[in-house]
Amino acid sequence: MSRMIILTEADLRSVVELDMDAVDCVEAAFRALATKAVAMPPILRLDIAEYRGEVDVKTAYVPGLDSFAIKISPGFFDNPKIGLPSTNGMMVLLSSKTGLVQALLLDNGFLTDVRTAAAGAVAAKHLSRDDSTVAAIFGAGMQARLQLQALMLVRPISEARIWGRDVAKASMLAADLAVRLGIPVSACRDPQDAVTGADIIVTTTPSETPVLKGEWLQVGQHVTAMGSDAEHKNELDPAIVINGYYVADSVKQTRRLGELHHAIAAGLTDAEMDFPELGQIITGRKPGRADASQITVADLTGTGIQDTAIATFAFARAGSAGAGMKFES
Amino acid sequence: MSRMIILTEADLRSVVELDMDAVDCVEAAFRALATKAVAMPPILRLDIAEYRGEVDVKTAYVPGLDSFAIKISPGFFDNPKIGLPSTNGMMVLLSSKTGLVQALLLDNGFLTDVRTAAAGAVAAKHLSRDDSTVAAIFGAGMQARLQLQALMLVRPISEARIWGRDVAKASMLAADLAVRLGIPVSACRDPQDAVTGADIIVTTTPSETPVLKGEWLQVGQHVTAMGSDAEHKNELDPAIVINGYYVADSVKQTRRLGELHHAIAAGLTDAEMDFPELGQIITGRKPGRADASQITVADLTGTGIQDTAIATFAFARAGSAGAGMKFES
Repeated sequence: MSRMIILTEADLRSVVELDMDAVDCVEAAFRALATKAVAMPPILRLDIAEYRGEVDVKTAYVPGLDSFAIKISPGFFDNPKIGLPSTNGMMVLLSSKTGLVQALLLDNGFLTDVRTAAAGAVAAKHLSRDDSTVAAIFGAGMQARLQLQALMLVRPISEARIWGRDVAKASMLAADLAVRLGIPVSACRDPQDAVTGADIIVTTTPSETPVLKGEWLQVGQHVTAMGSDAEHKNELDPAIVINGYYVADSVKQTRRLGELHHAIAAGLTDAEMDFPELGQIITGRKPGRADASQITVADLTGTGIQDTAIATFAFARAGSAGAGMKFES
Repeated sequence: MSRMIILTEADLRSVVELDMDAVDCVEAAFRALATKAVAMPPILRLDIAEYRGEVDVKTAYVPGLDSFAIKISPGFFDNPKIGLPSTNGMMVLLSSKTGLVQALLLDNGFLTDVRTAAAGAVAAKHLSRDDSTVAAIFGAGMQARLQLQALMLVRPISEARIWGRDVAKASMLAADLAVRLGIPVSACRDPQDAVTGADIIVTTTPSETPVLKGEWLQVGQHVTAMGSDAEHKNELDPAIVINGYYVADSVKQTRRLGELHHAIAAGLTDAEMDFPELGQIITGRKPGRADASQITVADLTGTGIQDTAIATFAFARAGSAGAGMKFES
């Protein structure tokens, strides 16, 4: 017999939002990755090509934490044709001491959205210039929206540009974000126009060919690429990885799944070459931005430790709020 | 918003049991593995050494099936000290077409128990002699119990012996099984006594050193080793793997996790050597038992396709029975 709490998406939305607490929670996860004996096995990935579907399962255990999460994260890219979102999923929180299920977090991908955006804020906080005011966002989906919101938590963003393959969608998003965030947000037809003069560029697309060219970049810019989480995805011109100050969320993962993977495949760097990780920058084990002219690049593939962090955070919040349903099986 | 069915252990026990339907379901899974383009990624495994805990996550997609399961299977070996079972866990059933969660199967490991025992029956059905009447079971836990019950579904077992490291536990199990199954069941102090004259030997222990010696085996015997599901586990003298007619549930897995792994490590066979799989025997793509004197060996590490099979089976049965609770999130 096991006793657990079932938390619906509505329960979770009532206790977690994309704010500095969420950013701090994800920052602490990256810090743990650099300082503790975290167990984070490779992502389990199942592909269902006939329905353009893929499922990632991620997990990580942080010594000292009472719980760890296992996240099931499906992406089925024909779903929008039948009126369903492409991504959804859930997390299971288990006791680190007994393996018993403590909670089912039926978030439909909400917690993944928050922890992914929060990682963008953490990267910008530690790598972009303090005085960054102009943001360029590539993509027009949920993460385009959230990454801009996340940047505003850590930098004095006063203007944003959106570039998306679908110009109408980018324009709608820009108009909506301008109202919600209270800053000018414009949609750009030409991606280079979005980049020129931006301080921070965040790419949030599922692209399989580079959408950001190296020659468009200007001194002092920071780039976060968060769209690639699989071998075939690629947002950055591989030269950007090599010419900028490159930082991974997890080098083990970015070598296989991130922008680094494509730089290695292009023969621009060695597969064994070591690169700094975000947690090492946060803890001062590796240097951060050298000066105001350096170009910095964060390659975020999404790590199981972010899932464990946001799930334990949500579980604690839900406990304090008395949210969720007790269930026995 | 997603709609799912939540099935408790009690719901699942009311619709699934270890019977020929369950055996047929698992047999069909192995058949699919041999004949269809099944996607079965490597097991995700997380170790939490400080609490003697491990978690396996398994999955498989079978083309044509509407659903696939993701199974979370924790084993925490200090749990009995605090009155909890070592193993528990749950399965999530997702739509193959949309990735949406269809059902949460909160089985506390029950479905794993059934599908694991059913695989033992499938192995015995296709590899042991038709006239097998005497079974020897190594181990005195849940699978010792279920494997004997499973053998009786496919072979005319009329006598059984139990050997366990804990003699008292083995004696209690033997007495209990004799009553439940209506055949003589004795506990043996000496493992060789259990093996001598047995037709089928099933090892169900979590041992890390061989419990079954090659020199004990007699012509015509069938051995199923189902205890090893991790690199450090090892039940069979590696010579048995080489000298018998060896069949794997999945060669990819047994090379890494099963008895084959230890035969490779001992230098007795090449890491690249191909071996028949159970599904290939079932479908006649590889020969089964050659004659009444051959020694056959099944190496079962437990595959994600068994989980998808038993989960879809349980879900269909629950649907017909109207079992479970509808839930929206």
